[in-house]
Amino acid sequence: MPPAGEISQFTAEQIATLQAKLEKRLGPEYISTRPGPGGGPTITYAEGWKIINLANEVFGFNGWCSSITNLTIDFIDAHDTTPPRYSVGTHCITRVTLRDGTYHEDVGYGTAENQKGKATALDKAKKEAVTDALKRTLRSFGNLLGNCLYDKQYTEQIKNIKLPPVSSAVAPDYYLF
Amino acid sequence: MPPAGEISQFTAEQIATLQAKLEKRLGPEYISTRPGPGGGPTITYAEGWKIINLANEVFGFNGWCSSITNLTIDFIDAHDTTPPRYSVGTHCITRVTLRDGTYHEDVGYGTAENQKGKATALDKAKKEAVTDALKRTLRSFGNLLGNCLYDKQYTEQIKNIKLPPVSSAVAPDYYLF
Amino acid sequence: MPPAGEISQFTAEQIATLQAKLEKRLGPEYISTRPGPGGGPTITYAEGWKIINLANEVFGFNGWCSSITNLTIDFIDAHDTTPPRYSVGTHCITRVTLRDGTYHEDVGYGTAENQKGKATALDKAKKEAVTDALKRTLRSFGNLLGNCLYDKQYTEQIKNIKLPPVSSAVAPDYYLF
Amino acid sequence: MPPAGEISQFTAEQIATLQAKLEKRLGPEYISTRPGPGGGPTITYAEGWKIINLANEVFGFNGWCSSITNLTIDFIDAHDTTPPRYSVGTHCITRVTLRDGTYHEDVGYGTAENQKGKATALDKAKKEAVTDALKRTLRSFGNLLGNCLYDKQYTEQIKNIKLPPVSSAVAPDYYLF
Amino acid sequence: MPPAGEISQFTAEQIATLQAKLEKRLGPEYISTRPGPGGGPTITYAEGWKIINLANEVFGFNGWCSSITNLTIDFIDAHDTTPPRYSVGTHCITRVTLRDGTYHEDVGYGTAENQKGKATALDKAKKEAVTDALKRTLRSFGNLLGNCLYDKQYTEQIKNIKLPPVSSAVAPDYYLF
Amino acid sequence: MPPAGEISQFTAEQIATLQAKLEKRLGPEYISTRPGPGGGPTITYAEGWKIINLANEVFGFNGWCSSITNLTIDFIDAHDTTPPRYSVGTHCITRVTLRDGTYHEDVGYGTAENQKGKATALDKAKKEAVTDALKRTLRSFGNLLGNCLYDKQYTEQIKNIKLPPVSSAVAPDYYLF
Amino acid sequence: MPPAGEISQFTAEQIATLQAKLEKRLGPEYISTRPGPGGGPTITYAEGWKIINLANEVFGFNGWCSSITNLTIDFIDAHDTTPPRYSVGTHCITRVTLRDGTYHEDVGYGTAENQKGKATALDKAKKEAVTDALKRTLRSFGNLLGNCLYDKQYTEQIKNIKLPPVSSAVAPDYYLF
Amino acid sequence: MPPAGEISQFTAEQIATLQAKLEKRLGPEYISTRPGPGGGPTITYAEGWKIINLANEVFGFNGWCSSITNLTIDFIDAHDTTPPRYSVGTHCITRVTLRDGTYHEDVGYGTAENQKGKATALDKAKKEAVTDALKRTLRSFGNLLGNCLYDKQYTEQIKNIKLPPVSSAVAPDYYLF
Amino acid sequence: MPPAGEISQFTAEQIATLQAKLEKRLGPEYISTRPGPGGGPTITYAEGWKIINLANEVFGFNGWCSSITNLTIDFIDAHDTTPPRYSVGTHCITRVTLRDGTYHEDVGYGTAENQKGKATALDKAKKEAVTDALKRTLRSFGNLLGNCLYDKQYTEQIKNIKLPPVSSAVAPDYYLF
Amino acid sequence: MPPAGEISQFTAEQIATLQAKLEKRLGPEYISTRPGPGGGPTITYAEGWKIINLANEVFGFNGWCSSITNLTIDFIDAHDTTPPRYSVGTHCITRVTLRDGTYHEDVGYGTAENQKGKATALDKAKKEAVTDALKRTLRSFGNLLGNCLYDKQYTEQIKNIKLPPVSSAVAPDYYLF
Amino acid sequence: MPPAGEISQFTAEQIATLQAKLEKRLGPEYISTRPGPGGGPTITYAEGWKIINLANEVFGFNGWCSSITNLTIDFIDAHDTTPPRYSVGTHCITRVTLRDGTYHEDVGYGTAENQKGKATALDKAKKEAVTDALKRTLRSFGNLLGNCLYDKQYTEQIKNIKLPPVSSAVAPDYYLF
Repeated sequence: MPPAGEISQFTAEQIATLQAKLEKRLGPEYISTRPGPGGGPTITYAEGWKIINLANEVFGFNGWCSSITNLTIDFIDAHDTTPPRYSVGTHCITRVTLRDGTYHEDVGYGTAENQKGKATALDKAKKEAVTDALKRTLRSFGNLLGNCLYDKQYTEQIKNIKLPPVSSAVAPDYYLF
Repeated sequence: MPPAGEISQFTAEQIATLQAKLEKRLGPEYISTRPGPGGGPTITYAEGWKIINLANEVFGFNGWCSSITNLTIDFIDAHDTTPPRYSVGTHCITRVTLRDGTYHEDVGYGTAENQKGKATALDKAKKEAVTDALKRTLRSFGNLLGNCLYDKQYTEQIKNIKLPPVSSAVAPDYYLF
Repeated sequence: MPPAGEISQFTAEQIATLQAKLEKRLGPEYISTRPGPGGGPTITYAEGWKIINLANEVFGFNGWCSSITNLTIDFIDAHDTTPPRYSVGTHCITRVTLRDGTYHEDVGYGTAENQKGKATALDKAKKEAVTDALKRTLRSFGNLLGNCLYDKQYTEQIKNIKLPPVSSAVAPDYYLF
Repeated sequence: MPPAGEISQFTAEQIATLQAKLEKRLGPEYISTRPGPGGGPTITYAEGWKIINLANEVFGFNGWCSSITNLTIDFIDAHDTTPPRYSVGTHCITRVTLRDGTYHEDVGYGTAENQKGKATALDKAKKEAVTDALKRTLRSFGNLLGNCLYDKQYTEQIKNIKLPPVSSAVAPDYYLF
Repeated sequence: MPPAGEISQFTAEQIATLQAKLEKRLGPEYISTRPGPGGGPTITYAEGWKIINLANEVFGFNGWCSSITNLTIDFIDAHDTTPPRYSVGTHCITRVTLRDGTYHEDVGYGTAENQKGKATALDKAKKEAVTDALKRTLRSFGNLLGNCLYDKQYTEQIKNIKLPPVSSAVAPDYYLF
Repeated sequence: MPPAGEISQFTAEQIATLQAKLEKRLGPEYISTRPGPGGGPTITYAEGWKIINLANEVFGFNGWCSSITNLTIDFIDAHDTTPPRYSVGTHCITRVTLRDGTYHEDVGYGTAENQKGKATALDKAKKEAVTDALKRTLRSFGNLLGNCLYDKQYTEQIKNIKLPPVSSAVAPDYYLF
Repeated sequence: MPPAGEISQFTAEQIATLQAKLEKRLGPEYISTRPGPGGGPTITYAEGWKIINLANEVFGFNGWCSSITNLTIDFIDAHDTTPPRYSVGTHCITRVTLRDGTYHEDVGYGTAENQKGKATALDKAKKEAVTDALKRTLRSFGNLLGNCLYDKQYTEQIKNIKLPPVSSAVAPDYYLF
Repeated sequence: MPPAGEISQFTAEQIATLQAKLEKRLGPEYISTRPGPGGGPTITYAEGWKIINLANEVFGFNGWCSSITNLTIDFIDAHDTTPPRYSVGTHCITRVTLRDGTYHEDVGYGTAENQKGKATALDKAKKEAVTDALKRTLRSFGNLLGNCLYDKQYTEQIKNIKLPPVSSAVAPDYYLF
Repeated sequence: MPPAGEISQFTAEQIATLQAKLEKRLGPEYISTRPGPGGGPTITYAEGWKIINLANEVFGFNGWCSSITNLTIDFIDAHDTTPPRYSVGTHCITRVTLRDGTYHEDVGYGTAENQKGKATALDKAKKEAVTDALKRTLRSFGNLLGNCLYDKQYTEQIKNIKLPPVSSAVAPDYYLF
Repeated sequence: MPPAGEISQFTAEQIATLQAKLEKRLGPEYISTRPGPGGGPTITYAEGWKIINLANEVFGFNGWCSSITNLTIDFIDAHDTTPPRYSVGTHCITRVTLRDGTYHEDVGYGTAENQKGKATALDKAKKEAVTDALKRTLRSFGNLLGNCLYDKQYTEQIKNIKLPPVSSAVAPDYYLF
Repeated sequence: MPPAGEISQFTAEQIATLQAKLEKRLGPEYISTRPGPGGGPTITYAEGWKIINLANEVFGFNGWCSSITNLTIDFIDAHDTTPPRYSVGTHCITRVTLRDGTYHEDVGYGTAENQKGKATALDKAKKEAVTDALKRTLRSFGNLLGNCLYDKQYTEQIKNIKLPPVSSAVAPDYYLF
């Protein structure tokens, strides 16, 4: 929403509602875990699509914009195997802008290790970098969009909360022809 | 719809309708599957033309714009065969902009493996990258435009839903001279 | 129609009419077929001039604009024959803009294989790339401008529809001095 | 006619008249033929000056603008003869803009084969490229400005139509001091 | 006349008068001929100063503008003689703009063959290119400004028309101190 | 909040409240410590997510913006081990802008020492640099956003203050589907 | 006179007067001759200062502007003599703009052959190029500013016209302290 | 506070108050000392955080802005030790802008000598440079923001003034969850 | 006086007065002579300071502006002497702009031959080039500002006119403290 | 104070007061002396902080702005000693702008001779250059801001004037917490 | 005073006063002399500070602006002595702009010959170049600001005029704390 004239300010009421929502922390149904790199501690994270859905829910589908400021391959290494396998590292800077012009920028990283195909490695690393950047950028808007995941006390707690059974009723309907 | 003055804001009613539609998930008739790379798990996806038709249906033919921010060949490899075969990897960044100025950007990837012709390989990889980017970018607007495809629970469910027989009546008419 | 001030918005009625038209699928008289590359499956397509005529019919001659964002030679290969023959690959990105500012961009590809003359090869590949890009870009506006051609179910059906005899009456008149 | 303020919109009546004219196909007096390259099929085309005259007739002398977006020498080859002869290939992108801001861009190609002089070869190739581009660009406005020439059915028909004797009366007068 | 604010539109009457004039073909007094290159067919052309005078007559001295978009030396060849002689090829792109903003661009070519001096060769080739470009650009405005010269039927006819004796009365007066 | 028109000035009352808040120093619950580099003195710091939450609390979620002015890899060193390990140093300049246009810029640094993977090293160093820069930039707005951490007297005192037990009541709620 | 706001349109009367003046051909007192290069035919020309005075007379001292678009040394050749002598070729593009914004651009050439000093050669060639360009550019405004000099019939005639004795009365006065 | 429209002028009263404050010299509690380089005279300085707090106190948290115009590494030297140690020099130019648009720019320097880690050295040198620049820039606004520190008479005097015991009451409160 | 808004048009009366003045030719007191290069004919010229004074007299001190568009060293030659002597050639393009926006540009040349010091040579050549350019540019405004000096008939006449004794009364007064 | 809109003109009264002040010459308390380079004559100068204080006093703290147009290292020489010592030369161009838009630019120079550390040398040279430039730039506003220091007669006189004892009363107060 | 809006035109009365002042020639108290280079004729000049004071007196301290368009080192020569001595040549282009937007640009030169220190040489040459340029630029405004110094008749006369004794009364007062 960059050009002047496209800005539509929030009302005081909208701000209060949004502020309260954004201070909440992600419920357990948003949380995933994976092993840390090199046998390190388990990493607690939220999948990209859930954060995107949350952003659409909180700000509305036309309440936030995202753009790629920079997407760069840091390295492509061909390993000394037959046939060669490939490792790739890329970083991405994204910007998220709200309807009233508020914005944040942050960096994300995407990696592919020891992949059979160069294209597969690049494909994975680039998309991962963009999604990673989007998540890191959105988290600046508050706990709900991911900032809570950096709170170690919270990530310890949330692991122990049982997920309620998903009621198919609350899941969004299918869209048919 | 970038230049100032071309913006036409949605009404509150339009927003509510769109928001509800976009939260729906793709019905089974939008879903295709293909084998994952390297014998990996089956990939669930929606074909590009279906997503384009959906975007036209949801936003209207003049409700969304798309542009190519970047289309780059990452590599062209000539394989050591006689005659040589070619593998190509390209990435593309697209931007999708709605009538009210809301936009998203994302990356797509296109590959061609072991193709007889260099041109055929480039042709395929470049178009694939653009369509892939368009799909990834549109999905940021919600489940309906593809975000649901990143939800593994959903992709498991949707495979098991039978497609109703296509009624030719609902299919769009042919256009004749 | 880029500069601010040149925009003329569609009326609600115009939008409804256009939306309905654009959802229609190409009738059989718009359809051509050719053998796929490398003995692959038959390709179903529409000739460029037909799509241009359709665009003029649907949007009006002054209802759409096209521009070339990028036209690049990807490679010129001289084959090891006497005299040498040439193969060329070029890609093109075009943008199509409607009267109200809506736009799409997409890529097209042009190839010339094993041509006697370098100029002939370049001539063919460049024009093919532009026309191909124009078609791919127009198809984003809906089925009628070519999106239906990506639907395999449709391309199967349409082959079996007989063309009605062309009535010379409906063909446009000749223009004389 | 790019700068804002110079735009003069067509009236509805003007649009209707122009739309009807542009849908007409070129009468036989506009048609020329030449042998295809390499003994290929006869090529049916319209000479550049006729299309320019048509554009002036249809849009008015101040109703359309043309500019050269790009004019590039693709290659200059000196043949291995004594004295050397030259072959040249150039491409050109032109833009044609109507009074109301509508525009199209397309590519043209110019070639010179085996010419005695380098300058003669470049002169011919460059001018040919510009005129070729202008014709291809104008044809996007409809059948009348050349799109019909891409319709093989039409080019077959038009060859068999006899040219009426040119009445000198309808030819434009000479302009004298 | 590019900057906004400098535009002065033609009245409907002015347009009609100009349109009629521009459709006329050059009378015999504007026509020169020279042998074609390499013993080819005689070339029929109009001298640059006559076309400039015509443009001033038709549009008025302040009714048209010309600018040089590009003036490039394509080659300078030093021949293997003692002392060396020089051949030069240059091309030029010009733009002609009318008072109401209508414009055309086209290319011209200038050559100097086997000249004693390098400067003489460059001087000739550059000026020739500019004048040639100006003529090709002006001809887009209609028959009168040179488009008729591309009509072979016309150039055959015009050769056979006798020039009336120039009446010194109609020639412009001399301007004295 | 850069473009003109997006600025919304603070009221005098808002300024007074913010000024008072920003002069306060971070309570003990915001404070972390880690060993200094090379066995140096303990470093007292606040975690990034806490400072982001504070910024959202003090300025509101739509009261501050952040952008990355510069993110550069200063060095990537491959250590002489088998397999190689990697050390990386990157710096980042960020800008933080308040709703009324006030801004600060500062630099942050990110390092990765002796990491197994090049990508892991880059990922860590880049994100660390951005977060570090964000913290250094925010501290310019006052004690509360981190300036107090540079006061050695304060960092001595704060270590000795016992943290009150966290009342789960004041912690933000979870957000559920 | 480029910037908007500085334009002052001519009145209809001014245009008529100027148009009539500009159609006149240069009287004999403006004409000089010099031998053509390489023993070629005599060249008929007007000296630069006369054309500048004419421009000031016709348009007024504040009625026309001139600028140098490009001034480039094409070559500096040091001849193989002792001491070396120098030959230089430079070209210049100038633009002349009238008070109402009308403009023309053209090229001029300056040469210095076999000069003792490099500086002298460059000095001469550069100034010659500028003045030559100015003359060629001004001639586009009509016969009076030099276009008549390209008419061979005129240059033949004018040689035979005797110059009336210059009346010192009509010469401009001297300006004294 | 750069863009037009964001400027809010000071009132005459505000200016008088600020002018008086800024003329005051730093009290002893703002003063630190350290040994000069190479055993030179003791250096009297104010810590960066104190000057930032003073700026926030004097101008208000939203009364001044800072930006980094330039941050450059002048050298990175690896010393000839095992393992190598590093010395780094960087300079930084910052700009400080007040609410009414008044600004100053100045340079700061950051060094790291003989550090074990390259990253540690760069980290230290860059941050030091930014803070140093900020302090030098702020001092242009008057004695209070550091200009007094360049007055040798003052630095002699201030060393002899005893610091009053810090009353914890005047220290800012802690901010708690 | 380029920016819009700074233009102040001349009144009709001012124009008439200026036009008359500018048509006058330089009186003998403005004329100097020097030997031509290489023993060539005597060169008649006006010193720079006189022309500047004239410009100030005619247009007023705030009636004309001058700027340097380009100042370039064409060559610095070190002669093969002990110690070396230097020759330098520089050219300069200046623009002179009147209060109403009228402007001219022209080139000047500066040379230094066989100078002992490189700096002395450059100093002389550069200043000479600027002053020379200024004079050539001013002369486009008419005889009075130097155009008459290009008229050989005038330079012959003026040499023979005796200078009246300078009356110290008309010389400008001295300015004292 | 560059952007339009930020300008606040001085009143006639303010101008008169400032003009009178600026014409005064620096009293003896502003004057320092140091030995000239190479045993040359004593140099009379004012310290930077005194001139900055004067500028704040005369124009007000928000009455003048300073910026660094250019800060460049001219050379860094490592001397042939063990360990090496360093000499550095840097120059700086600053601009000082008053509240009403009046500005001056000038150059300053900073040197460090034979320093032990490279960083120390650069630090000293750069800061010296900025301060030196600031002083030279401010002096263009009149005697009071340093122009009098270039008057040798004045510098002789001022050395002989005895400094009155500094009254601590007139010195600015200390600023306390 | 470049940006639009900052211009304040002179009144007719102000112009007349200024015009008269500027036509006066420098009284003897402004004149200095020094030997010409290489034993050449004595050079008559005015010191920079006197001209700056004059500019401030004539136009007012806020009536003129100066900026450095270009400051370039032309050469640094290290002489073949032990230790080396240095010679430097730099040129500078400055622009002086009056309150009503009138401006001039000119070049100045600075040299340092055979200096012991490189920095000393650069320092001297650069400052000399700026001051020299400023003087040459100011002289375009008339005799009073230095144009009279180029009049050899004047410089002969002025040497013979005795300086009246300086009355300390008219010298500006000292400014005290």
